[in-house]
Order: sequence, then C-alpha cells, then structure tokens
Amino acid sequence: MKRELPADLRARMEEMKAAPFALRLGIETVSVGENEAVVRMPVSGLTNALGMAHGGAIFSLADQAFALAANSRGEPQVAISASITYLRPGRGDLVARARKVEENRTTSVYEVQVLQGDAVVAIFQGIGYKLRRSEKKVD
Amino acid sequence: MKRELPADLRARMEEMKAAPFALRLGIETVSVGENEAVVRMPVSGLTNALGMAHGGAIFSLADQAFALAANSRGEPQVAISASITYLRPGRGDLVARARKVEENRTTSVYEVQVLQGDAVVAIFQGIGYKLRRSEKKVD
Amino acid sequence: MKRELPADLRARMEEMKAAPFALRLGIETVSVGENEAVVRMPVSGLTNALGMAHGGAIFSLADQAFALAANSRGEPQVAISASITYLRPGRGDLVARARKVEENRTTSVYEVQVLQGDAVVAIFQGIGYKLRRSEKKVD
Amino acid sequence: MKRELPADLRARMEEMKAAPFALRLGIETVSVGENEAVVRMPVSGLTNALGMAHGGAIFSLADQAFALAANSRGEPQVAISASITYLRPGRGDLVARARKVEENRTTSVYEVQVLQGDAVVAIFQGIGYKLRRSEKKVD
Repeated sequence: MKRELPADLRARMEEMKAAPFALRLGIETVSVGENEAVVRMPVSGLTNALGMAHGGAIFSLADQAFALAANSRGEPQVAISASITYLRPGRGDLVARARKVEENRTTSVYEVQVLQGDAVVAIFQGIGYKLRRSEKKVD
Repeated sequence: MKRELPADLRARMEEMKAAPFALRLGIETVSVGENEAVVRMPVSGLTNALGMAHGGAIFSLADQAFALAANSRGEPQVAISASITYLRPGRGDLVARARKVEENRTTSVYEVQVLQGDAVVAIFQGIGYKLRRSEKKVD
Repeated sequence: MKRELPADLRARMEEMKAAPFALRLGIETVSVGENEAVVRMPVSGLTNALGMAHGGAIFSLADQAFALAANSRGEPQVAISASITYLRPGRGDLVARARKVEENRTTSVYEVQVLQGDAVVAIFQGIGYKLRRSEKKVD
Repeated sequence: MKRELPADLRARMEEMKAAPFALRLGIETVSVGENEAVVRMPVSGLTNALGMAHGGAIFSLADQAFALAANSRGEPQVAISASITYLRPGRGDLVARARKVEENRTTSVYEVQVLQGDAVVAIFQGIGYKLRRSEKKVD
C-alpha cells in the first residue's frame, strides 16, 4: 500500500474495479496493495431463497479481491481455478481480504477471507496463471 | 424429469429459482430433475475488465445449478464447499448442467459443466451437506 | 485401450508404473488407455490409526491413475493441483479409475473414482498442465 | 505446544503417529500443538519416474500433519475433503506444517505448507468434519 503503482497498472486496476459484473453486484474496492486487496459488498438484493447471501455472491466478492490482488504488480494473471469453503451464513455487509500465499514462475496461490464484522463467512483459495506476452489473448 | 415433484418441494424449488441473486444475474431455470438441473444466463452486463464473463458470474451460474440439483429430492442440502476450473472464456450466453456424482448419508458430490454452445467454459464441483431436522437453521 | 501406444510413450509409461513410490505402496497398473487408466492397491499396511485406508494412501492411488491417464498420449503433463472428497472408509483392496473430463491447450481436468468393489470410497479431481518443450525441466 | 495434552488424547496421538501408513512412508512427527502439527519425511524411495517426490507422497505428508493438528484438542475429526497445489518439485527431505485457518461447530479448515528448506513445495488445504458421539463409527 505504501508503494505508488505505475500509471498503466493504475489504469488497469481502475478498469477491473469498474467491471460491469462488479458494479452489478455493488462491489466496492476498499484498497489494493502489492499482492493484496480488500473489497466490500452489501448483501441486500444478493440473497438466496433463505434470505442469506447466495453462495455465488460470496464467491464473487472473494474472486474480485483475488483478481485485484493477483494483478496488483503489473504482471497479468488469470484464474486457473478457485475453491471456497462456507463456514457461516452472510447476512449483512461483507468484506473480502485477499493475500498471496505463495507463487512460482507460472502460478500463484492466494487466500481470501470473507468476513461479516469479525466472523469468517468463507475461506476462498484462488490459483492464478501468469500470462506470458504471447498469451495475452486467451482463448 | 419424468417424476412429478411433491407440492412442498415444488414450492421450495420456485423460491430458489426466484432468489433475488438469481434474478439480479438474469439466471433462468431450464429444467430440474432428480439430482440434476439445467440453468442459463446471458453474459451481457456480467463481464470483467476484458469484456468476458467474470469468473464470479460463471461460478454463480454453476452454483445455482448445483443448489437446484442437490435440493431436488426434498432433502435439504447446503454447500460445504465448491471448486471451479476455468477452461475457456465465456463470451455469449452460458448454460450450466448439474448432475450428482456420488453421495453418502451426510454429504454429496455434484459436477456442473458450464457451456457456451458445445464448448466447456468451466468445470465446477460442489460438496453438499445434508441438513438434519435439528440443523435446519444453520448458523 | 485398443490403440497401440508408440514405443517411447510405452517406455515412459513403464517408468511411471514402476516409480519407487508406486512400488512402495504396492500400486499395480491394471490398464492404460487414451486419457484413461485403472490401477489397484491392497490396503494392508497402508492404514491409519483406525485400521482403515489412510487418506494419503487413497489420494496416492488416485493420483497415480491421474498421472498415467494424463500422460497416456505422449504429451507430458504435470499436476498443478488436485482435490479429493472422501465418501466412505476403505477397508479392502481399492481400485482407481481415471478419465478425462475436459482440456484446453494448456490445462486438463481429470476425474478419478476410487472404488472398493462397487462402493465409491472417494472422488478425486486432478488439474494437469501441459509442458511445452522448453519447460520439460520444471523447477 | 505449551499446554500439556490429556492422557487419552496423548494416547490417540501416539496411535496416529505410529499408523502403519505413516511408518511405511517414513513420516516422523516433529511436534503437535493446539490446532497445529509439524511432520517430516525423507524423499528417498518415494519418488516418481522423474526422481522427484511423487505427488501422492507430498499429499500424504501434508495429510498426516492435517490429521494430527485437527485431532489435537481431543475432539475427533475426519477429513471431508482436501486439495493441494504443487509449486516446486521436492527433491530432499520435506517438512509439513499444519495450522488451523478457521472452524465452525461442524467443520474446520486447515492449511498445510510443505517445505524443502525454505522453499514451498506445495500448499494443502484440508476440510475436517467434527464427529458427534453417535457418529464415531463412520461408514
């Protein structure tokens, strides 16, 4: 958080923060630092049949934190895979905090905690793949 | 699909199909059968900064299919955990097809394929936990 | 199973079947076909404190089936990640059956069922990464 | 580590440490504390066709650390599922360090790092299920 990000990276981060899906869900970016990010989301309108945060909404918030953290250093990454474990229902505003666990030359592992106040609602783990220049257009 | 579902189960299924989060994403239920479900979703408005379906949107569609399939027999289940592997970017309308892989007395495993036409966009695996009567209110 | 594998691939398969770890656990290869493999293992000597197959032994059997199946076409692959869900304790001889679920240019998804007779003991999912020529020495 | 474990728990821990599968692989317990455990294993004899630690061996070491940590408080737990991401090949002695990430009344999440010296070889995540008294005999 202390280091100033370069201009092109800041621009890409702004695009990610303003992605249509993030806006649709009301996800706001609290902060992005080197290999870490914090985002938040109101649960209102994102509930399941029981009136609690839908599993997809909880995952989406965590995934957005993962994407911001994994791309925070200017080296573009895409998600290979991700997993989530649900521990408590989410009933109010949720916050997701992403941090890097480890990485090698091609892949990275991030952990995201989804919190409602101090309670851990879910633990997310994302595996990122570092795109080479020749791969920037994935298909 | 051949078997008629009992009235209370049909009512719960209707509540799940009309969950606020599903409506927010434009997820439509194509069909629900015993241990299986098919749902679809337009990608428009659910994209990331690159204009492709956001990973959270793809997961959410799969998760909704999993939830409908796992609750299709009247025995309520909640998700313990889920994982997703992304194989191709999603650019158009997506369909998710859930089927049961295996189960025991307390847990179940479902696989969901997320498709764009014939192409597999992602493979989702969900682990369900069968609620006992005394647990119907989770916290 | 019907197709004859080329000689260099057959040689590599033989090395994989005879890997020291596979011999240590008593894993035998039943068959290897295109994108599929079947292996078996006695549980005797591989138990946990409760006298049932150790979770690590069950995973190892599945992982060996995954490795054989993913390398069955001559395109070398390494595991990026894998997950396993345990459904029933393993008490006798176990068989693991691997099959390809899906793949793209760089990654693949395999499912392995670990069986004791007809009962499913565990469901394993492996994600493979296709090595390019320049990457054959991973580090 | 500071707290003395009760006698029956110490006895169960000793059974887990001396499980046939752990002995077969040469896994030694370095320490067990409240919700944490450290184990180590030589790679010799546990290699794949490339002479590196077999993925199953790496998982098994991590799984043993998870099992010891999750059962370290006298409340018996079994693994529902586990996942592993491989980051570097293991060539020498490996150490696995397990710690609790989070838990609720029925489930727990543990992270295990598998290390060769200071290098992280793999990240393991285990989900435990807390057995009730009536469930102590799983089937």
